[in-house]
Amino acid sequence: MVMTTKGYNVAVVGATGAVGEKMLETLKKKNFPINELHLLSSKRSAGKEVEFKGETYMVKEATPESFEGIQIALFSAGGSVSKQLAHEAVKRGAVVVDNTSAFRMDPDVPLVVPEVNENDIEKHNGIIANPNCSTIQMVAALKPIQDRFGLSRIIVSTYQAVSGAGAKAVDELQTQSQAYLNGEELNPEILPVGGEKHHYPIAFNALPQIDVFQDNGYTFEEVKMINETKKIMHDDSISVAATCVRLPFFSAHAESVYIEVDDANISVKDIQNAIKEADGIVLEDDPANQVYPTPLSAAGKAEVFVGRVRKDLDHDNGFHLWIVSDNLLKGAAWNSVQIAESLIKNNWL
Amino acid sequence: MVMTTKGYNVAVVGATGAVGEKMLETLKKKNFPINELHLLSSKRSAGKEVEFKGETYMVKEATPESFEGIQIALFSAGGSVSKQLAHEAVKRGAVVVDNTSAFRMDPDVPLVVPEVNENDIEKHNGIIANPNCSTIQMVAALKPIQDRFGLSRIIVSTYQAVSGAGAKAVDELQTQSQAYLNGEELNPEILPVGGEKHHYPIAFNALPQIDVFQDNGYTFEEVKMINETKKIMHDDSISVAATCVRLPFFSAHAESVYIEVDDANISVKDIQNAIKEADGIVLEDDPANQVYPTPLSAAGKAEVFVGRVRKDLDHDNGFHLWIVSDNLLKGAAWNSVQIAESLIKNNWL
Repeated sequence: MVMTTKGYNVAVVGATGAVGEKMLETLKKKNFPINELHLLSSKRSAGKEVEFKGETYMVKEATPESFEGIQIALFSAGGSVSKQLAHEAVKRGAVVVDNTSAFRMDPDVPLVVPEVNENDIEKHNGIIANPNCSTIQMVAALKPIQDRFGLSRIIVSTYQAVSGAGAKAVDELQTQSQAYLNGEELNPEILPVGGEKHHYPIAFNALPQIDVFQDNGYTFEEVKMINETKKIMHDDSISVAATCVRLPFFSAHAESVYIEVDDANISVKDIQNAIKEADGIVLEDDPANQVYPTPLSAAGKAEVFVGRVRKDLDHDNGFHLWIVSDNLLKGAAWNSVQIAESLIKNNWL
Repeated sequence: MVMTTKGYNVAVVGATGAVGEKMLETLKKKNFPINELHLLSSKRSAGKEVEFKGETYMVKEATPESFEGIQIALFSAGGSVSKQLAHEAVKRGAVVVDNTSAFRMDPDVPLVVPEVNENDIEKHNGIIANPNCSTIQMVAALKPIQDRFGLSRIIVSTYQAVSGAGAKAVDELQTQSQAYLNGEELNPEILPVGGEKHHYPIAFNALPQIDVFQDNGYTFEEVKMINETKKIMHDDSISVAATCVRLPFFSAHAESVYIEVDDANISVKDIQNAIKEADGIVLEDDPANQVYPTPLSAAGKAEVFVGRVRKDLDHDNGFHLWIVSDNLLKGAAWNSVQIAESLIKNNWL
């Protein structure tokens, strides 16, 4: 691909969604080199107007022809749209960064967190997948530990924000919270999973279901964390277990993570140093001064925050960590745009 | 002790607090045999009037003399009150059921969850300790598993309600939630820990600190879960790890628990059956129909609810569970009154 004088022709598919909005914010914040910007969506959202850097864009329905002349297409309009249109985009010469689960486990598609496995991008055949939000922040924080001390086991329990379930789930938390405070009925309609048979209140509650259940009793969110982690970290032998829980806050996921490293002689300080020196990861860990990350403190920021690093009291190679990051930024839009930047910087388009 | 015709002389210390209120509710609900009821509190709350079974009681300041003639004293007015007055009550002939952390790890004091170690009550020397709320529900659910299959390891991440931090924390969540929805400032003053240097918003947030930090980086809540579990389950060799997190809901704690059993040949069904047949524990576990417990569904109920039982995908002896119970009922008042009932039923007063 030859770069035009001004930049690249970029399409954002799902421009009006919760992640799409953050995509545009991130493109702006990173001053991404854009020649033409095309905002696309499902038929339902087409016709909306969206502002970007002072100009107003009309959102158009995404069709195969929408990708003529597009060099980079950022998809976040749901798995079915990606399955339908990503290959059409590639056929027309675009490289697709896909933020859905459609192609993540496809052996032909790199699954990338740039801080962890940037070089996998080079092997792409037109599509690069952006991992699940809860996976991204965890592997980003654990990669420097894996590199230095080896990593054999992960057990994670998540504390996930409603924005990961989309704009309607955000509205539902807001509306339900007010109803609860007013002593009114809660009428759940979206969470835990839009389209599922049963809905439960999220306001002042905790729902141990994110995405649909699989036959083995794990939710698809849990399966995603398990499988994606092994693929991104290039190690099928790491044992990974996950329990995913939706909670009543708006932005940023938190994770209570237990790990086992290969080197039983390392200390909390060693883990902290590995994290401190890694790109994109911020150590916020000073118990004596009550310093640790929280969803509210991490929301709106691009980094992954780590605190509460402790050595297990019974297993010398065991450590506990608390990992927090904005699920719509590093967990989605920020990571996608990082992949696009890497494509350009490394001439991998 | 000789039972009077009507029942026992009972003192409730801390009668105006969040747990005290539930103590009275539980005594009423269980139709506990009471002759005289004495409601006691710190100086600050003395003089308040409280209703019980249609009669109005004046709350009096607890002093050593308050316990003259008392047979059963239920303490939940904070550790310092218990340290000051529990032995005074015992000196005067009362048996104390203490719901604070004051005596829990004292080798001379039984620490009891009746479903787990009721017989320990017999060894009391006047004081029986009620465990920490997050410990009670976990050991209650794990005991039937330990009995049948052996138990070698527990890793728990908690999702804890604000009512565990007292009535002021409940008010704070309520006030802050409304302020957040109104776009106003949050002004945290209580949580994570009243009296600590720093306070953080709990509304629409998650705070990975419950109680104060110890030198090893664990919070006291985490240390309590670890030590109390070993004492109640009579097995110092079980390895226990805990990460405790305060969340924006009012009642009932949830726990994501990973366990390792001795018998690697058992199935999810075996675990479910053990739970189903245990007293006081309710299995709510049917993923195909989205059946699992949540804080809102468990609040106000006396049982411990278990769902999301899954086999670990890498370790044949590993299982994951989701355990939910009302922290003020089974986690505090209900368990205390159960201990008092056991004292009577078994003639252990």
